[in-house]
Amino acid sequence: MNAPAAPWQATILTLYPEMFPGPLGQSLSGRALAEGKWSLEARNIRDSATGKHRNVDDTPAGGGPGMVMRADIVAAAIDAATPPGDSRPRFLMSPRGRPLEQARVRDLAQGPGAIILCGRFEGVDERVIEGRGLEEVSIGDYVLSGGELGAMVMLDAVIRLLPGVMGAADSGTEESFEAGLLEYPHYTRPREWEGRSIPDVLLSGDHAAILRWRRREAERLTRERRPDLAAKAGLAD
Amino acid sequence: MNAPAAPWQATILTLYPEMFPGPLGQSLSGRALAEGKWSLEARNIRDSATGKHRNVDDTPAGGGPGMVMRADIVAAAIDAATPPGDSRPRFLMSPRGRPLEQARVRDLAQGPGAIILCGRFEGVDERVIEGRGLEEVSIGDYVLSGGELGAMVMLDAVIRLLPGVMGAADSGTEESFEAGLLEYPHYTRPREWEGRSIPDVLLSGDHAAILRWRRREAERLTRERRPDLAAKAGLAD
Repeated sequence: MNAPAAPWQATILTLYPEMFPGPLGQSLSGRALAEGKWSLEARNIRDSATGKHRNVDDTPAGGGPGMVMRADIVAAAIDAATPPGDSRPRFLMSPRGRPLEQARVRDLAQGPGAIILCGRFEGVDERVIEGRGLEEVSIGDYVLSGGELGAMVMLDAVIRLLPGVMGAADSGTEESFEAGLLEYPHYTRPREWEGRSIPDVLLSGDHAAILRWRRREAERLTRERRPDLAAKAGLAD
Repeated sequence: MNAPAAPWQATILTLYPEMFPGPLGQSLSGRALAEGKWSLEARNIRDSATGKHRNVDDTPAGGGPGMVMRADIVAAAIDAATPPGDSRPRFLMSPRGRPLEQARVRDLAQGPGAIILCGRFEGVDERVIEGRGLEEVSIGDYVLSGGELGAMVMLDAVIRLLPGVMGAADSGTEESFEAGLLEYPHYTRPREWEGRSIPDVLLSGDHAAILRWRRREAERLTRERRPDLAAKAGLAD
């Protein structure tokens, strides 16, 4: 018999450890955390700062607005959080990063966990990104006040895919992006609401017709709203 | 003299009102909330449910996994949260939505606020999306356990752009996406770290050369990492 699998292990490096678990402490991810299906350690980068004022940042070389997180301090925080042999991937949440996609989320859920550095201020010294092999990842093309919400988004997406986390009621089998398409429209009771009816086909009991309708609607919505995804999914115009 | 501007007003409709303000109660957005630069009301959708068990969801018409949020309950929750004449845009956080981009964030920050419905379960009955004019918005191509983190992401992006929220130290003038490019690499002290040096040009004091270097690096990174943004920004290959 195999030993029980170690829980998926998240380590967050942040200037705001008190933000965690925050929303991740409730609902699906909170239950999974309480049940030991994943673990969360939020470490304060400032604990690795030296000097009287424990500064973690300094002014950008070459001038310009904002402050930059120091390579030496961030590296010390990473090193303190990662015992030798720790094979978890290391991420920096950053709008410069590779956009997070569901396929990457699935990969991560198969792995041992993640170490996530949450950027703040104007950015992080480039040398520690290179020197500690940080993979920059972006949750979208907008600017946030820091990487903490991005880390929570990535974790939430991963945690729901861990074994035993989702019940049958939210099984996640027919989901957005799983087939590269947006999801078809949903309906439930009441049958009639403010003069709007559930489409007849969904009440027909004809399972094959329902599947066809849903597929057609998913393709239509994807074409209309996300031509980029439609092209990737090989839908003709 | 003009009366002081009303604060930017966020109303969240959720099954997990206790998640709010959560991370938004700290750091930049938390300070702005305490200072009255924006307001936050998180309302429980379940308060609009009728019936003994106060169910907000039911099984999908046509079958399939999961549960669907009911049109009548969600509409009642929206109506209870919006006095007549409320001109705020209404959003549904959903992976089927239009991808959130920084330009939309800037528009929103100019407006009066937002009403944000956080989806849960398999989805929301299509008829209430149409009947209450909800704009579906997605924060990225991945699946979350609910819309709450998406709502926080959208709010965080908007709040930092509200007047008086960002100080001079994080002025946000030279930012990712503002010019359609990814940001150039940042460096700060120490000058030498683990054998890696700050690029000479950044220490040269030659402001024009620094600007050229940063522009070139921003273009290079955008081409390498985000050919989609490079094409939009008109960069040749």
